[in-house]
Amino acid sequence: MLKLFYAPKTCALASHIALQEAGADYETVRLDFRANEQRKPEYLAINPKGRVPALVTDRGILTETPAILAFVAQSFPQARLAPRDDAFAFARVQAFNSYLCSTVHVAHAHRLRGYRWVDADDAAAIAAMQKKVPQSVGDCFDLIEREMFAGPWVMGDSYTICDPYLFTLAGWLEADGVDPARFPKVHDHRHRMSGRPAVQAVLADERG
Amino acid sequence: MLKLFYAPKTCALASHIALQEAGADYETVRLDFRANEQRKPEYLAINPKGRVPALVTDRGILTETPAILAFVAQSFPQARLAPRDDAFAFARVQAFNSYLCSTVHVAHAHRLRGYRWVDADDAAAIAAMQKKVPQSVGDCFDLIEREMFAGPWVMGDSYTICDPYLFTLAGWLEADGVDPARFPKVHDHRHRMSGRPAVQAVLADERG
Repeated sequence: MLKLFYAPKTCALASHIALQEAGADYETVRLDFRANEQRKPEYLAINPKGRVPALVTDRGILTETPAILAFVAQSFPQARLAPRDDAFAFARVQAFNSYLCSTVHVAHAHRLRGYRWVDADDAAAIAAMQKKVPQSVGDCFDLIEREMFAGPWVMGDSYTICDPYLFTLAGWLEADGVDPARFPKVHDHRHRMSGRPAVQAVLADERG
Repeated sequence: MLKLFYAPKTCALASHIALQEAGADYETVRLDFRANEQRKPEYLAINPKGRVPALVTDRGILTETPAILAFVAQSFPQARLAPRDDAFAFARVQAFNSYLCSTVHVAHAHRLRGYRWVDADDAAAIAAMQKKVPQSVGDCFDLIEREMFAGPWVMGDSYTICDPYLFTLAGWLEADGVDPARFPKVHDHRHRMSGRPAVQAVLADERG
């Protein structure tokens, strides 16, 4: 059985939703980031990066949200979560998710994880990073709203693995100091996503 | 015909090498970053992110290195640049490339692109970011050397789209203040990559 290691309020939510939407047989293991469980030897043996998500499969362990999402889509083709047998359409899905991973999530991470890129005790530099987050994250969502979001789902008529990932990162906008009302399409998408049974089931599980 | 927009000494090198290794029929367009060509309206019409690489195909435009690399591998299956019909093996390739894109490249970018995450005129914060780069990039390559690199190629016996991407980022180590000799497997990989005819052809083209 697949086993997803996650922590609440992290990007692991995207993989969690995708597993649920796919109808996968899976279980979850919740890590407590406040207790720093992601840095303990037991977890570093699973994911030496000390991060979530990690997906344990019968073939081995996968990390990195775009890779896990693609794996779920390809392993459960009947759920139609990504284009099949169309290298271009699949690459567009991967491009969107790669942008979320390497640019949007990274911009957001400068609010609470600035110690990755400056000395942790450099309070002025940490504060300088936090100050820029509303602008850098806002710029990312401007681009998504204007150039990337096809509608009604990210890629157009078909719901794909891009949708739970966008939903996950869009859920951090208010905390990042960005008003989601600036992005009507993304805002409406977040509302529609919240109404999906799979999303409601996963959110209830992560809260519980 | 495929058309790759690139700039020398950027991560577009990975896609350039992959196209060459695949035996693709492609042409390249070089952007001059010193003249800020990537921010000009003509290029923003191709890639509104104002970055390279961008790959123009007869179906539309692709961006983001992990997506372009997967597209090249899937479009030229005879070149065997990624596992086919094996969702787990393909996801492992994507996971490696996603780590390079979202963690390794991002750590490196704090040396010259710090203005993305703090105000450009905050010299102290920019300097604080630059100071951390040798440690953050070095930590990434420690993890690659210790946990990820299977050998002789990144994924093991088969050369894949992970190899030109690792080669590209490993080429920045010295400038980032990291001694490549710390990572014997990565260092040897860089040397073997440099000897491949496709890599030599691409490097000569980008220098020319």
